Amino acid sequence: GIGDDCAVLALDNNNYQLFTTDTLVDGTHFHTIWQTAYQVGCKLVEVNVSDILAMGGYPTSAVIALTIPEHTDVKWVQELYKGISAASSRHNMFVTGGDTTRGPNIVLTLALLGNVPHNRLKLRSTAIPEDIICVTGTLGKSAAGLAAFQNNITGNKDGYLSPKARTVEESSLISKFASAMIDISDGLASEITHICTSSNTGSFIEAKNIPISEDVKAIADKIRTDPLEWALYGGEDYELLFTIPAEYIASLKKEFSDFTQIGKILSSEKDICLIEKGKITTVKPGFDHFKQ
Amino acid sequence: GIGDDCAVLALDNNNYQLFTTDTLVDGTHFHTIWQTAYQVGCKLVEVNVSDILAMGGYPTSAVIALTIPEHTDVKWVQELYKGISAASSRHNMFVTGGDTTRGPNIVLTLALLGNVPHNRLKLRSTAIPEDIICVTGTLGKSAAGLAAFQNNITGNKDGYLSPKARTVEESSLISKFASAMIDISDGLASEITHICTSSNTGSFIEAKNIPISEDVKAIADKIRTDPLEWALYGGEDYELLFTIPAEYIASLKKEFSDFTQIGKILSSEKDICLIEKGKITTVKPGFDHFKQ
Repeated sequence: GIGDDCAVLALDNNNYQLFTTDTLVDGTHFHTIWQTAYQVGCKLVEVNVSDILAMGGYPTSAVIALTIPEHTDVKWVQELYKGISAASSRHNMFVTGGDTTRGPNIVLTLALLGNVPHNRLKLRSTAIPEDIICVTGTLGKSAAGLAAFQNNITGNKDGYLSPKARTVEESSLISKFASAMIDISDGLASEITHICTSSNTGSFIEAKNIPISEDVKAIADKIRTDPLEWALYGGEDYELLFTIPAEYIASLKKEFSDFTQIGKILSSEKDICLIEKGKITTVKPGFDHFKQ
Repeated sequence: GIGDDCAVLALDNNNYQLFTTDTLVDGTHFHTIWQTAYQVGCKLVEVNVSDILAMGGYPTSAVIALTIPEHTDVKWVQELYKGISAASSRHNMFVTGGDTTRGPNIVLTLALLGNVPHNRLKLRSTAIPEDIICVTGTLGKSAAGLAAFQNNITGNKDGYLSPKARTVEESSLISKFASAMIDISDGLASEITHICTSSNTGSFIEAKNIPISEDVKAIADKIRTDPLEWALYGGEDYELLFTIPAEYIASLKKEFSDFTQIGKILSSEKDICLIEKGKITTVKPGFDHFKQ
C-alpha cells in the first residue's frame, strides 16, 4: 500500500525485486551553502541504496527525477551527476534514465530497483523476543556534522557532508544471520520503534552501549550537548539496525565485526525502553528536535 | 545512460522490464488554482503510464515521492491520493510505496515499472522511410484548456484538467503493427523530431491532416490564435505518435481506428517538414512559446 518505504515484488523462482524511492529537498535534506553538488549527488544515491541493503538486497537500476531552478549553474548540475555516478559505481548499480524539470527549489528524487534472494529478504516485522539488537558502525555522525556547521565550530563533519550506506557485502553477511533489519534514516529511537511495532514486541536498549565516535563526542562537548540525543533522534546515519539470535553472533563476527550489541528484543507486553544510568525511560520517537 | 526517459531492462526470456519517472511541479505542470488535487493525482499517473504505453508495454508497479509544504491541507493530500488511486485502477497497476518530504513547493514524482514482450517493444529509433506517420485522438487539447483558463474564457478545458494516456489495449494493438512509437508529451513538432533524429530519417507532416477537435478550434477562435500552434508546440496531450508500413494500416484499422494519418517518413537526406497551404517549412522544435 501507499506509505511504505520499500516494495517487495515477485521476480522469479529464486528472487524478489525491491523498489524504493527517496527525495532530497534543498534546505531540508541538504544545504547548498555547506555541501558541494558532488556530495549531494552521492547522498542521493546512498540514502536509496541504504533502503535496499536494509532488506538484504543489492541495488541494480535507478532512474532520477531532478527539479532545478531555471538559473542553476550548469557546473553545479555536472558536479551533481558526477557524485551520482561515483556513488552508483561504488555500489555496482546503474542510473538508466530520468526526468529533469524546472521548479523554484531544488528537489532530487531517485527511484531504485534491487534484487534479493528469497532466503535473504529481511523485514522489520520478524524480530523475536530474546533476539539481540545490534547496530553497525557509530551513530550521531550526521547530526553532529550539521550542528558543527550551524554553530560555526570545527570538527569532523563528514557524517553530515558525505553519509554512506554500508556495502552490499556487509548487508549480505548480516542477512545470513539476522532475524529483522532496518536502516537508520530517522534516528535509532524511531527505527527500533518501527521494528518493535511491526514485530509486535517490546525491547530495551542500553544507552552506554550505543556506539558514538570520539569525533561526535568532541563536537557535542564544544556545544555542550548530549551526543546520545543525536544518536537517538538525529538520523541520516544510514547504519544498519538488526536483530539476531544470540547463538549466531559469534558466527557473524567471524565474517563481519563492525557492529555493537546495544539491547534485546522483549515480549509484546513490554515497552520500548532505554536504560540510562540505571534509569529506565520509554523511547519517544516523536520527540525529535534534530530532525528537520 | 543518464538523460533517457524510459529504461529497458532485461527481465526474463520473453519480456523486458520498463522503468520510467516523471515529475509534476506546482506552477509548471499543474496549477492548484485551477486544478483539483484529484485531477493532479490522476495526471501524475497518466503522464507516467503514457511513457510505458509508448514503448508497447503495460504498467505494473509504481512508487511515489511527494514533496509538500508544511501547511498543506490534509484534505488536499487525501484527494491527491484518491486521484492517484483512481488512475492506477484505470490502468490496472499498483502504487506499492513511497516517500513524503517537506519542501517549500509541491513537487510530485512517480517512478513506474512496466513489462513488454520482446516482440512488442517499440522504440523511437526504428522508423523506416516510406512509413506512414499516424497519431491517435486529437492534439492541442491541453494547451487549449490552459489558454482558456489564462484568458478567462469558457470552453472545454478537460484536456488540460484531466489529460489521459491511451489504454494498454490500444497501445498493444498499435504495437502489433507500428515500426516506431513515442507519446506526445512535448508537442508534435518535438516528438516527430525525436523519432526522425533517432531513426536517422527525414519526414513531412501535412498541417491540414493534424487532428484538432472542434472544442479546441472554438477556444482558439475566441482568443484569435491558430490551434495548429497548440498541436505542434503545446504538448501534454499524451496521444501516441507512431510510424507504420502503409500495408499494415488496414489491418490496424480493423482492430483500432481512433488515429489519423498525418505524414510520411522520408530518407535521411530530407528535412523534418511541415506542409501548410502548399508552403513547406522546417519543423523547429525549439520554437515553443506554449511549453512551460
